[in-house]
Amino acid sequence: MKNGMIVSFEGGEGCGKSTQIKMFKEYLEKNGFDFLITREPGGTELGENIRELLLHSKGEISPETEFLLFSASRAKLVQDVIKPALANGKIVVLDRYYDSSYTYQGYAGNLSLSDLKTITEFAIKGCVPDLTILLDLSFDEGMSRKSKDENLKNLDRIEQKGRSFHEKVREGYLKLAEQDKERIFVVDASQSPYKVFETIKTEFEKRLKK
Amino acid sequence: MKNGMIVSFEGGEGCGKSTQIKMFKEYLEKNGFDFLITREPGGTELGENIRELLLHSKGEISPETEFLLFSASRAKLVQDVIKPALANGKIVVLDRYYDSSYTYQGYAGNLSLSDLKTITEFAIKGCVPDLTILLDLSFDEGMSRKSKDENLKNLDRIEQKGRSFHEKVREGYLKLAEQDKERIFVVDASQSPYKVFETIKTEFEKRLKK
Repeated sequence: MKNGMIVSFEGGEGCGKSTQIKMFKEYLEKNGFDFLITREPGGTELGENIRELLLHSKGEISPETEFLLFSASRAKLVQDVIKPALANGKIVVLDRYYDSSYTYQGYAGNLSLSDLKTITEFAIKGCVPDLTILLDLSFDEGMSRKSKDENLKNLDRIEQKGRSFHEKVREGYLKLAEQDKERIFVVDASQSPYKVFETIKTEFEKRLKK
Repeated sequence: MKNGMIVSFEGGEGCGKSTQIKMFKEYLEKNGFDFLITREPGGTELGENIRELLLHSKGEISPETEFLLFSASRAKLVQDVIKPALANGKIVVLDRYYDSSYTYQGYAGNLSLSDLKTITEFAIKGCVPDLTILLDLSFDEGMSRKSKDENLKNLDRIEQKGRSFHEKVREGYLKLAEQDKERIFVVDASQSPYKVFETIKTEFEKRLKK
């Protein structure tokens, strides 16, 4: 009987999530772990079609409709990708998962967190991460990194929302971590990428199922 | 202050829903009602795209994913079509609404009815029908009508499910009607289309807001 493991990465804009996932991937490869990395929405044919609908539909999509589409894609990903991988003993690495919905649409948007939780439980059928890495960074530091990386005009619809939105996202993440200390591991993302990764690696190895 | 009204039509395969909606449409036109007819899933551009995904996607779609897609289409229909029409005092005629989910995915599809109700309330934001017409027909009669109408090879993914599934759908509808006698009006759909329509017309006129 093999036991897989879910590790999700979360955080606000400019927190260094992509860099850390890349470093984590290299670490997993070097150490011979059986793993897969996936992101939402997408990861399945239906998920890719839903992604198309979200990106190219004309007219306004209400937060409720948007969240339901994300949840449909999430349910399909759980069914087709996450559950089979876990059954094969793989480590499933998720670039964002439902905590992103709780913070962006719940704490910072106007949707009821209790509704979001009920709908998420319905969609994920118990596929809760064994470890969630929260890369915590202030709004100012995140934006200062973003502006070095790219032309600010290229920020997407969510990134363009203002300071107050992104501060609510950060507060939301920290509240979730406070409520679920076992699962969510908060890392100070203002440190150097190398230091951040060392902290993540140490925590991951502590949690490894042997 | 104008008050619109929602009338939904429900029933299993071959129950004569399309015929009755057509007759109801002619009646509404003849009597000068301001109305619109829409269908689920669909009724908006996003909804029609979701309909395509549901009816013609390759590979298995879990009942959870299916329901979340229906709900996303429903939320969009409420936002873009139903609410504005009600605000303009129109009669909104729905070819299927959330009762279809409660029966097809709940009673016949093994999803928790309580979850379906929570998610539906999240999607419809209070847009409950004033009158739901349930066209009640046995599986055998429904299939016998279908096979006269069309080549059986053309049945879609949901229509192709077997007898036990469709019998659960029928039982589910009757249970819903039992629990919500005020809203759901059951019509014996084995009668002639003309007789069925006369019953519907009488009930509709009784419920009309004056």
